Amino acid sequence: LTTRLPAVGTTVFTRMSTLAAQAGAVNLGQGFPDFGCERSLLSAVNDAMLADFNQYPMMSGAPVLRQAIVAKIGALYGHQYNVDSEITVTAGATQALTTAIFCCVHPGDEVIVIEPVYDSYVPAITLAGGVPVPVEMEVGENGYTVPWAKVASAVNSKTRLIVINTPHNPTSTVLRAADMQALCDIVRGTDVLILSDEVYEHMVYDGHRHESVSRYPELAARAFVVSSFGKTYHVTGWKVGYVAAPAPLMAEFRKVHQYNVFSVNTPMQHGLASYMADPKPYLELPAFYQRKRDLFRDGLKKSRFELLPADGTYFQCVRYDKISTQTEAEFAEWLTTEIKVAAIPVSAFYQQGKESGIVRFCFAKNDETLALALERLGKV
Amino acid sequence: LTTRLPAVGTTVFTRMSTLAAQAGAVNLGQGFPDFGCERSLLSAVNDAMLADFNQYPMMSGAPVLRQAIVAKIGALYGHQYNVDSEITVTAGATQALTTAIFCCVHPGDEVIVIEPVYDSYVPAITLAGGVPVPVEMEVGENGYTVPWAKVASAVNSKTRLIVINTPHNPTSTVLRAADMQALCDIVRGTDVLILSDEVYEHMVYDGHRHESVSRYPELAARAFVVSSFGKTYHVTGWKVGYVAAPAPLMAEFRKVHQYNVFSVNTPMQHGLASYMADPKPYLELPAFYQRKRDLFRDGLKKSRFELLPADGTYFQCVRYDKISTQTEAEFAEWLTTEIKVAAIPVSAFYQQGKESGIVRFCFAKNDETLALALERLGKV
Ligand SMILES: CSCCC(=O)C(=O)O
Ligand SMILES: CSCCC(=O)C(=O)O
Repeated sequence: LTTRLPAVGTTVFTRMSTLAAQAGAVNLGQGFPDFGCERSLLSAVNDAMLADFNQYPMMSGAPVLRQAIVAKIGALYGHQYNVDSEITVTAGATQALTTAIFCCVHPGDEVIVIEPVYDSYVPAITLAGGVPVPVEMEVGENGYTVPWAKVASAVNSKTRLIVINTPHNPTSTVLRAADMQALCDIVRGTDVLILSDEVYEHMVYDGHRHESVSRYPELAARAFVVSSFGKTYHVTGWKVGYVAAPAPLMAEFRKVHQYNVFSVNTPMQHGLASYMADPKPYLELPAFYQRKRDLFRDGLKKSRFELLPADGTYFQCVRYDKISTQTEAEFAEWLTTEIKVAAIPVSAFYQQGKESGIVRFCFAKNDETLALALERLGKV
Repeated sequence: LTTRLPAVGTTVFTRMSTLAAQAGAVNLGQGFPDFGCERSLLSAVNDAMLADFNQYPMMSGAPVLRQAIVAKIGALYGHQYNVDSEITVTAGATQALTTAIFCCVHPGDEVIVIEPVYDSYVPAITLAGGVPVPVEMEVGENGYTVPWAKVASAVNSKTRLIVINTPHNPTSTVLRAADMQALCDIVRGTDVLILSDEVYEHMVYDGHRHESVSRYPELAARAFVVSSFGKTYHVTGWKVGYVAAPAPLMAEFRKVHQYNVFSVNTPMQHGLASYMADPKPYLELPAFYQRKRDLFRDGLKKSRFELLPADGTYFQCVRYDKISTQTEAEFAEWLTTEIKVAAIPVSAFYQQGKESGIVRFCFAKNDETLALALERLGKV
């Protein structure tokens, strides 16, 4: 059996979570909360099960959930998607991203990705027969930024898609209005599509606003916009997300979606729809996570790690060059097994495994967990 | 945007369910029960949610569920899969089938499918860049049978995979030991793989036994075996299934799976695992559905429809040539809108839309629903 993905092993998240469990380490590697969600969300799902919402939902998603998604996007970003033809509920954001790539990337098409890049995009592009074209972010005083001039130079007649991600995993960069204008300038007059991974849309700090692609009509007209309920509502294991796109793009998305998963867990969809009636949980999320970010950053300031900016997501990147000259993978393993705090090497987000002396921590944890991790990291 | 699936529209199931809802018809089209599942299954899921099983499960599936699956396959078919390396839980059987195709079919590879063919296989093969090679089942006194000599002739050096499905949708054919021996003879000495769709494994009637590929070591050594919890436990909307395969095949499957959906709903997996501790629900399923099949067949015998054999699945195919000369699609629409009973045209399961004057009904319905449908069908 010849592999279709020669470059692929087990994801870094699985590897580090396994190592963390073996080592009995505090797991600040893979991104997921160690606290529960609101009990009312659980009873909403249970109510849906008891009301016999257990058979196939519509292929595009339960209408009540699509309505709630359209209302949310409209309220927050001012763009009115059509409930019937422009929203599809997916089995998590990963499936949304992969399906979007499959439905529009033909063999030989080029796809621009921004490195460090979330680890699922490139294998999906490769499987579709596309050619990933990485453009590296630059790291300076203000942390990681996207060099739009380089993105512009990478565009040519073979470019089919540009994949962006804001707030950005793993760098915590939040794109600004100027970034979005740069992107508008790049795609104007071309037939390049955009795939925008916005799964951390509700985790933006210090008063910045989330620059959703759906705020920009020029971009939204050619974009698949992806989000996730797991991240917003502290239920990463539920694997429910969605994609919003103009009807002609969505028609192609659904052609693939219906033969990839067909549809998505019915009671979870109904439970999420009724829970979404109240916007409070996502409106309060920035403050909730900003407090945890500050607690974690304040603790790390007393350590020998050097903090990078963290404007969004639940991740914090740190430099460790005052501590070790190990590669990032070695250092993350050492942290996990010896210091008993697991981290993710940022090199895992580069195709060529670029080394920057930076690892990523996840601060979506109980204060006690963060305190224990800080105590251990402070001794390094 | 050039489509990647030019031949694909909306699935026949979505189209007929929509039409059935508009027409207020009894929906015997899309295959799903109109009754609920056991309440203890629902509380098992609720218990899992309340016990905070809401974050990412392992990529391969929750260990408790993989253990339960291995135990079931061992008890029923005598094959011991390895819990760690040979089972992966999927977001439904469709995702399992599509991911299996993606992980082994390279551009230009040929894949043999048996027509009538479940509608997701060919688009998945096409997306992977493979070439579907249909072999038509023959229809005689004993219903639909697979002409193995024709399958043998279709195999050549480009053949990568043979997809089989038993019990078979839409024809209700249950493969026999002789069929499996024929398949053994065909693949022996080749490197052709097998993808076996066994989602109706627990719906086999009249004392026949389910000839799982996992009963045949020669086949199991080169096969992806797919099943579904939704069909077995009356929860088609939960979208949880699994694939079993020897470790080297499973390693390739997981490379794709982890970037397609990454993992599958955590509380559903835990709920299903504890519910599976008792084998009664699936052991009693044949008798449960055989009674409904008989009730439905007895009713139809008084009508002008002509029954085909139905040894397995929850589907019944019928000839309507004494009633109408319409195409199957026209006739199914007419039944839905005028007679108020929805059916599925079997032509939708042929690449070239072959007409046989046969439509498919689903009898996974409450007795009252079946009685109402029979009353209406009796008047045709
Ligand atoms: C799908 S597991 C990885 C979770 C995640 O998004 C991350 O840790 O970056
Ligand atoms: C995935 S919807 C179709 C259900 C089904 O398997 C069928 O009706 O054949």
